[in-house]
Amino acid sequence: MLFHHCTIVGLGLLGGSLALDLRRLLPEMTITGVAHREETVTLAKALRHEGTPVFTDATCDITVVRDADLVILCTPVQTILAQMAQITPYLAPGTVVTDVGSTKRTIMNAATALPTGVFFIGGHPMAGSDRAGLTHARTGLFANATWAFCIPPGAEAVAQRLTALVELLGARPLLIDPETHDDLVAMTSHLPHVAAAALTNLVLGSAHGDAVLPFIAGGYRDCTRIAAANPAMWRDILLTNRDRVLVALGGLLDELELWRDAIRSGDAPHLEALLTTAHDRREKLNK
Amino acid sequence: MLFHHCTIVGLGLLGGSLALDLRRLLPEMTITGVAHREETVTLAKALRHEGTPVFTDATCDITVVRDADLVILCTPVQTILAQMAQITPYLAPGTVVTDVGSTKRTIMNAATALPTGVFFIGGHPMAGSDRAGLTHARTGLFANATWAFCIPPGAEAVAQRLTALVELLGARPLLIDPETHDDLVAMTSHLPHVAAAALTNLVLGSAHGDAVLPFIAGGYRDCTRIAAANPAMWRDILLTNRDRVLVALGGLLDELELWRDAIRSGDAPHLEALLTTAHDRREKLNK
Repeated sequence: MLFHHCTIVGLGLLGGSLALDLRRLLPEMTITGVAHREETVTLAKALRHEGTPVFTDATCDITVVRDADLVILCTPVQTILAQMAQITPYLAPGTVVTDVGSTKRTIMNAATALPTGVFFIGGHPMAGSDRAGLTHARTGLFANATWAFCIPPGAEAVAQRLTALVELLGARPLLIDPETHDDLVAMTSHLPHVAAAALTNLVLGSAHGDAVLPFIAGGYRDCTRIAAANPAMWRDILLTNRDRVLVALGGLLDELELWRDAIRSGDAPHLEALLTTAHDRREKLNK
Repeated sequence: MLFHHCTIVGLGLLGGSLALDLRRLLPEMTITGVAHREETVTLAKALRHEGTPVFTDATCDITVVRDADLVILCTPVQTILAQMAQITPYLAPGTVVTDVGSTKRTIMNAATALPTGVFFIGGHPMAGSDRAGLTHARTGLFANATWAFCIPPGAEAVAQRLTALVELLGARPLLIDPETHDDLVAMTSHLPHVAAAALTNLVLGSAHGDAVLPFIAGGYRDCTRIAAANPAMWRDILLTNRDRVLVALGGLLDELELWRDAIRSGDAPHLEALLTTAHDRREKLNK
C-alpha cells in the first residue's frame, strides 16, 4: 500500500470527498478524521460507504497526526498555515504532509519550517463546488481534475507515492512551482470568484430590489453560482494571493473598459468582433 | 383555439423550441416556419414531434405571414426591426404579431408604425442557452420561465390570448413597460453576458497561453458559459440597449473597484463581509 494510515484534517467538502474515495479504493487503509467541531466529528463517525464506516476514527484532537504516515490538511489557507505549526511537534520522521489549499506560495514558504525528515508536498486539486461541508461530500469528486503539486527539493521520491495515490482517485497530477501556480489560478479561479461575487452584490443588492428576480435566468445563475461558496475560505485565498489577484483584477477592469468603449461608440463590427472572439474561445472549451 | 395559424419567423433555438411546444400542445394548429437559409428550411421540414411533422410548412418566403393570425418573430433584434417593416404590407387585419427579442424599447417604438388593425405585442421569454440553432431546439424550454410582455394601449384584449398561449407552454407571463424591462434585463442578462465574454477574452487570450487550461475547473466554466452564445444576437442586444447596458457596466466597474480596494488593503474582516454578502444573496437564489 502507498500509505497505511491517512489522517485528514478538516472534514468539509474536500476532506470528506477524499475520505470517501480513499475508503472506496483502499478498504484496508486506516483513515482518521480531525474536525474543529464536535458535530462534524459525530457526522464523520456516522459516514459510511456501501455499509462500511469511512473513517476508522474521528476526533477534535489534532495530535492524532502522530500515528499517520500521510497527513492531508483540508482547511482554509490561513488555518492550514496555523495547523502546520501546530502539528509539527507530533509528526513522526518520514511522515508525508500535504494540503489542498488554493494558493501555494505562502504554504510552501511555511513548509520550510517543518522538521527534517518530514516531507511537505503542496497540493491543490482543481475540484470543488459552491456547496460546502461534509454533507455534500461525494465519491468521484476528483475524477479527471487537475491536482497540482509543489514538490520541494529532496521530496521527489515520496512525491511519487502521493501522485500515484491521486491518480488512483482519477485525478491528473501536475507538477508546478508555487509562483506559476498562483499566477495561473489567480486568472482561472480567483478572478472569476471576485467577478461572480461582485455581480451578485450589484444585481441582487440593486435599487430595483426584488423586481430583478423574475428576470433572472440561467445565464445569471451560471455566471454567479460560485459566489455562494464559503466566505472564510475565499477570504484566505484572495489575501494569500493578493498581488496576483490584483494583477488579474486590473486585467479584467481594463478588458471591461475596452467593452465599455465598444458599446459606447456603437461600433457594431467592432463589438461583434469582440463577441465572436469570446464565442470562439469559449466554444473551444466545450469540445 | 386561441390561434389557428401561427407563423414563426426565425428558426433558431427559440423559434424551433416554440414550434415543438406548440405542436405538442396544439396538434390542430397550422404552424408555418420561415427561415433565411434553405438548409434551415430543409431541417425544419424534417423536424418531428412523436412522429408528427412539427411544421405544417416551411419556407424562405416571409410573405407567407399573410395567412397567419399569429406571427412570432424569433430573429436577432435588428432583424426583427427590419422584418417588422418587411411584413407590414402582407399582414391581414386582426393579425397578432409578437417577438422574442431581448430588448423592448426599440421594438415597441418601431411597432407604432404598423397599420391599424394589426396588434403588436412585444414579448421576451427569459429562456435560452449558449447552444444556438434549430438542432438544439427542445420541448419544455419555456417551462417556469418568465415571459415578459409589453402591451400597447388598445391591445389588452388580444394580449390575453397571447398570455394564455404562453401559459399553456408553462411560462409565466409578466406585463411590464419597455423602459423598466430594458433596465432590469441590462442588469440580470446583458451585464452578465459582457462580464462572461470579457473574462473569456482575458483568461483564454492571456500571455499564459494553453498553460491556463489544466487550471480551468467548474467555476470558470459556469462563469463564462454564456460567452459561447450567438455573437450577432448579442451585438444587437447590447446596441439596442446601449444606454442601460452602460449604466449597468458602470455599476460593475465601481463594484469591482470596491473589491480591488478591499483586497489591496488586506482588510480581512471587510473582505469577508463582502464575500458573506455575496454568499447570502446568491444562496437565496438556490432556494
